Amino acid sequence: MKGVMIVGISEQVLPIDLYQRLGEQYGTPLYVYDMAVIEQRVADLRQCLHPNVRLFYSMKANPNPSVVRAIYRHGVYSEICSPLELEIALSAGIVPAHILYLGPGKSAAELERLVALGVRYLIVESIQEIALVQKIAGKRGMVAEVGLRINPRETVRGARLKMGGAARQFGIDEDQLPEVLAAARAMSCVRVVGLHGYLGTRILQADTIAANVRCMLEAADRLLAGGLSELRYVGVGGGFGIPYHSGESRLDLEAVALRTRPLFDSFLRRYPDVEVLAESGRFLVAEAGSYLVRVRYTKRSQGVEFAIADGGVHQFAAAGGAGSLVKRNYPIEALVCGRGEQRMYHISGPLCSPDDLIGRGVELPVLQPGDLLAVRQAGAYGLTFSPVLFLSHPLPREVMLANGQAVLVRDIDEYGLPAVREL
Amino acid sequence: MKGVMIVGISEQVLPIDLYQRLGEQYGTPLYVYDMAVIEQRVADLRQCLHPNVRLFYSMKANPNPSVVRAIYRHGVYSEICSPLELEIALSAGIVPAHILYLGPGKSAAELERLVALGVRYLIVESIQEIALVQKIAGKRGMVAEVGLRINPRETVRGARLKMGGAARQFGIDEDQLPEVLAAARAMSCVRVVGLHGYLGTRILQADTIAANVRCMLEAADRLLAGGLSELRYVGVGGGFGIPYHSGESRLDLEAVALRTRPLFDSFLRRYPDVEVLAESGRFLVAEAGSYLVRVRYTKRSQGVEFAIADGGVHQFAAAGGAGSLVKRNYPIEALVCGRGEQRMYHISGPLCSPDDLIGRGVELPVLQPGDLLAVRQAGAYGLTFSPVLFLSHPLPREVMLANGQAVLVRDIDEYGLPAVREL
Repeated sequence: MKGVMIVGISEQVLPIDLYQRLGEQYGTPLYVYDMAVIEQRVADLRQCLHPNVRLFYSMKANPNPSVVRAIYRHGVYSEICSPLELEIALSAGIVPAHILYLGPGKSAAELERLVALGVRYLIVESIQEIALVQKIAGKRGMVAEVGLRINPRETVRGARLKMGGAARQFGIDEDQLPEVLAAARAMSCVRVVGLHGYLGTRILQADTIAANVRCMLEAADRLLAGGLSELRYVGVGGGFGIPYHSGESRLDLEAVALRTRPLFDSFLRRYPDVEVLAESGRFLVAEAGSYLVRVRYTKRSQGVEFAIADGGVHQFAAAGGAGSLVKRNYPIEALVCGRGEQRMYHISGPLCSPDDLIGRGVELPVLQPGDLLAVRQAGAYGLTFSPVLFLSHPLPREVMLANGQAVLVRDIDEYGLPAVREL
Repeated sequence: MKGVMIVGISEQVLPIDLYQRLGEQYGTPLYVYDMAVIEQRVADLRQCLHPNVRLFYSMKANPNPSVVRAIYRHGVYSEICSPLELEIALSAGIVPAHILYLGPGKSAAELERLVALGVRYLIVESIQEIALVQKIAGKRGMVAEVGLRINPRETVRGARLKMGGAARQFGIDEDQLPEVLAAARAMSCVRVVGLHGYLGTRILQADTIAANVRCMLEAADRLLAGGLSELRYVGVGGGFGIPYHSGESRLDLEAVALRTRPLFDSFLRRYPDVEVLAESGRFLVAEAGSYLVRVRYTKRSQGVEFAIADGGVHQFAAAGGAGSLVKRNYPIEALVCGRGEQRMYHISGPLCSPDDLIGRGVELPVLQPGDLLAVRQAGAYGLTFSPVLFLSHPLPREVMLANGQAVLVRDIDEYGLPAVREL
């Protein structure tokens, strides 16, 4: 098979003829996920983390049920944040004992379901929520075990999106914890048995990962020293990033291992019965995905070359800059052979919106209508992070490559919850 | 009915008890559209525009089929940009003679359908697309009439989102028109009978609207003088804005009338057989809509008060700042009575994302779990402009208030194409 290198971004090679065949068979736009890449990333992260750290997959990164199940089959538990994610997980065969459930705004019905199911790592995020769990468990005549999401005092630099260490809707400020724990102790049907924190995402520096881990473990230490009687688990978050743009380097996993192992070792030596949890979404799935689009028209406007494709920001908003302060290109390849001359293109989509640009000034071979383009790093925060209903286009299909086969994992008309498919 | 004023933004008053009843009956989050406001805006815009200007509703602003049909029944034609929008329009009873169809990336199948239906105002955006129409019409043994979308030489200041006068994926640069028109003349099955331009959106200054109209009419003038033999219509775009944020003033429609009427008059006097088209989406529907959410929790983090609601940016991304360079609050009201003290709140949603903020530092009465909040100006670019699948929450219901009745116009499970409902 012929292949092209993705310069400076990834060592992956896209087999052109395979992807062309997928584009023909399933139509474009199309999401393609490569299970082998996901498996590699699971293995990479496992090897980097301490062997006693329990890894969870953050479903929000890619909630396709087939992706969720495939990852679970590799022994990675699930981190879930909504009732529909929970249904996807259950339909994918994930058991409640393997579910970490978070969310700052859970409804009473949602909490009832979680308590009834016995979701093991149920994280609560405010004193009001603890009181709600007390009421629900009390009505059922049982004791519910919960973990507290905490917002540590400390701020760690180096994360793209900070989720702690500042005023946040998430969790409970560390300063408020003594009071909250005292209030919880007075409730007979709730027991606080866990702690959870999540300090940032898209981290590419090993030092930042290590600082986050240290910050969470130290917070747990302070609470245990301060009288938290029973601790079964501590979630240290994740935030393992991947390089999207030229100039970004890959997270050095060996350095992560080197810097975090002593922290985990020290903690686990002192608290051998406490389970340490880590989570990852983007790192596990982003590089496995490609968003395939086909060029429909090419044109020149005021000196700028445009390639107008059949897919755009309604299906891959992040490639257009959504969620980032600065608009930088995701890696884009033309799946064409034997064209020498290169040209700079703006890659736009079919929307009547000037913001429908999934690439700006991308150096590509001279394009023609009918050419296939692949936007890479599309496996995380792709389709579901996008305004899929905008301008009323049908959702694209999703295909998973696994064991040498292509499997359709979302058909074109599955707007809601797609069925689980055998891989 | 009790009501509250929306300070500085709108003269509308939300009847609290009605909206509370809707929240109870249909659940939250919930979109509510008030047909009386839409009718008022249609009348306002009609009165402002020249009586011979044909008005089109830009479906992308709110493609709910019931909204689309309600507006059409007031004699406003439809501006459409995708095959699914077309199907919504047809199912809503709109006839092809009343459809303006745009889009920089139409597929061959899409063009075939448009030609077969005889969509009257079919706008093409490149020479490649004209050649495709020629092929399609040739195969059918007919002559297809098209309009050219042009990207005029001139740039007009004052629009938030410019769609012309710069390098764009839309239309054909004015400089290229002689060449394109000559090429089109050589094709036997395509006839260019129209021109269309769209120069910007969210305009709040009458002068800018007038400058855009002038720019398009002058471009048409130049082309007619330069040998365009047959012109049936000219689309001058729209861009009529509404005030979202404090400090923004309402577009002065009398001033728009005063400045544009002479332009239309002069053009129509010289070309009495040319139809002039204008379009509007946001202006007609934005102020009719409210996004209702219910507070689930309140908390304080590092000195900031948070109200965590059951709806968020996955369902109203624009309120969170999507599509704008600067994050400014949409008007938010608490639908509560008799609370004196005010407090500043960050209003967040249920997502596990720090970006899930639909209001920042909003001054509101002291809130409690269970309180209903209304985000206003939510009728345009609301639900469909949002990443509705992100974190896998069900879509909210949509309700239309019409003739003193509330009608459910999208049920909770209608992810795809909602049915048309009687109003």
